[in-house]
Amino acid sequence: MNHSSIIFSGPNALKCELVPYLIELGIDRVFMILDKILLEIHADTLYPLMDLLPKEHILLIEAGEEYKHLDQCQKVWRFFTESKVNRNDVVVNVGGGVLTDLGGFCASIYKRGISTINVPTTLMGMVDAAIGGKTAVDYLGVKNLLGAFHLPIAVCGDSSFLSTLTQKELLSGFGEIVKHSLLVGGDMWQRVIQFDPLYSDSEEWQYFVDLSMKYKEAVVKEDLYDNGLRKCLNLGHTIGHALESYFINSKSSFGTDRDLVSHGEAVIAGLIAELYMSNQLLGFPSDILHQLIYLAKENYAPLLFTCKEYDPLLKLMKQDKKNISKAVSYVGMRSLGEPVLLEVDDEELKNGLDFYREMLC
Amino acid sequence: MNHSSIIFSGPNALKCELVPYLIELGIDRVFMILDKILLEIHADTLYPLMDLLPKEHILLIEAGEEYKHLDQCQKVWRFFTESKVNRNDVVVNVGGGVLTDLGGFCASIYKRGISTINVPTTLMGMVDAAIGGKTAVDYLGVKNLLGAFHLPIAVCGDSSFLSTLTQKELLSGFGEIVKHSLLVGGDMWQRVIQFDPLYSDSEEWQYFVDLSMKYKEAVVKEDLYDNGLRKCLNLGHTIGHALESYFINSKSSFGTDRDLVSHGEAVIAGLIAELYMSNQLLGFPSDILHQLIYLAKENYAPLLFTCKEYDPLLKLMKQDKKNISKAVSYVGMRSLGEPVLLEVDDEELKNGLDFYREMLC
Repeated sequence: MNHSSIIFSGPNALKCELVPYLIELGIDRVFMILDKILLEIHADTLYPLMDLLPKEHILLIEAGEEYKHLDQCQKVWRFFTESKVNRNDVVVNVGGGVLTDLGGFCASIYKRGISTINVPTTLMGMVDAAIGGKTAVDYLGVKNLLGAFHLPIAVCGDSSFLSTLTQKELLSGFGEIVKHSLLVGGDMWQRVIQFDPLYSDSEEWQYFVDLSMKYKEAVVKEDLYDNGLRKCLNLGHTIGHALESYFINSKSSFGTDRDLVSHGEAVIAGLIAELYMSNQLLGFPSDILHQLIYLAKENYAPLLFTCKEYDPLLKLMKQDKKNISKAVSYVGMRSLGEPVLLEVDDEELKNGLDFYREMLC
Repeated sequence: MNHSSIIFSGPNALKCELVPYLIELGIDRVFMILDKILLEIHADTLYPLMDLLPKEHILLIEAGEEYKHLDQCQKVWRFFTESKVNRNDVVVNVGGGVLTDLGGFCASIYKRGISTINVPTTLMGMVDAAIGGKTAVDYLGVKNLLGAFHLPIAVCGDSSFLSTLTQKELLSGFGEIVKHSLLVGGDMWQRVIQFDPLYSDSEEWQYFVDLSMKYKEAVVKEDLYDNGLRKCLNLGHTIGHALESYFINSKSSFGTDRDLVSHGEAVIAGLIAELYMSNQLLGFPSDILHQLIYLAKENYAPLLFTCKEYDPLLKLMKQDKKNISKAVSYVGMRSLGEPVLLEVDDEELKNGLDFYREMLC
């Protein structure tokens, strides 16, 4: 079985590569789900695609994190049904990670699966969410609890979209780039710790976007169903996902803004806590851990939480879908580029959380 | 990739084959979804399984056709979440086609897929629904619009369940057996047209159950994702599904009971209409068509509808998920055991519906 997606990338990839590809497929087969906010801020970039499709083939939806749920899916399924979308058609998902996750999930179970193409418009989407076919929505406060493996036939990473992203969006995507850099190691790590995500233009980002897309695509090609190699992409996510899910669903004892935590911010926190555990358990080098802490302090506000909040966090970690026993499994690292799968107990996880709070808060 | 399920079959298969298999898997990993009505009518057969599992591993749900929807799925997902079901666990679905379709669907997208075992308790489940990994729920009045391919690791067809089925349930399952007999041909067809579904005991049914399970399993092993050979199993279903969906969602101009149409009854009607089309288009033998009509008249009440209802029926056929263009695709037959995939237009479908009404009504 072919477990790979066509990758279109670079500036103007949408106009110069994706559009001709869709014309070749046959436009009457193509439907589009678009984050409605993009109409205002990326009309120029989107024009070649919008202009190609009949209006009734396009569904505009809200696609903030708070919309990543079954009710929003039902809007999409209603659109598919009313538009008589069939199994031979193709759905192009245009938006950030929420949109490509949700659009992909909706497509994956509509008529037991129709083809998708992802056009990520955020950095996070380009380097992570839109690649690899993991689709999902949140459920009962647990991130991505309902989902499917549904590989897109193509992913179009057009760096034109980067120019209008907010600092917050760039920093969120950068969290995944930092994770990839730890897994790839070598030159990528050296460049990441010298990189300034807030004062770089699209061209400077291109190196990290291309390398991240290619790295993730290569991992997924080996292990789509997440039974082996792919698990390494979960680095920083055992604790990161729990923090993200917890913060979004709880009131902060520190007052404000908890619900604004981004995925990448949570991953950076997760990386620090988890790599401290790797330092203790596997001898992961302290100097790299401190380079990571320096990078976090330079770019990210700390996530504030107390030790009284460890129990609900641990509860969330135990619900993580990658977790298959009472101990929590997580990706440890022996050194840069050397991930290893481990099980850890509550005490070790609490030590990781303690370390994060000591260093950052 | 392994596209096959272990098949346990015969009298006492649940007690003698499935239970030892589950003990080998490890009982703490096993959860069960059970149609609550079975507790009353099959307590004895179910006892070896019920007794094995902790009470909190068992979810009782309603599983009539009217419950095959997303709300019912949400009960299941809530149970999985609250019971901390994880990706290494196994869910045993015990019930008719609605329960195995719905339980399988819920499992397929929970944490992107956990393993299932099906224990069909209806004839329809044993010969069709529980085998082959097509899972689904209905949506917006369209049958099985949302679903996934999710092959069970095992299917247990215990014929002890057959003894308490109603005539209506036996006749529904028999509809699929008739379809399989047309596809297999030869001795199976000869035996089916001589068989009396209302005056036969479990042992006499065993021949058809075993042959149907094995036939379907063999087809699915070749073509899980329904890209080729498996499409032949759709024989009678293009029109049959539309009739079933339409009847369940409409008031009869003839007064009563439309909502009681069973899947198998609808398939028998679909087989007659579609094989008439095959007779006209492909020269399918008239004598076999008339054997089928005789079998239908002997065993099934006709489905009553008028030509004014053709348009909504055609609309439903065009929404069928197997349909990939504006023409409607259906499984034609040249002769017994010789299916062929065709596209037909509205006129040909109306001719099939006319023929059914002339012959049966």
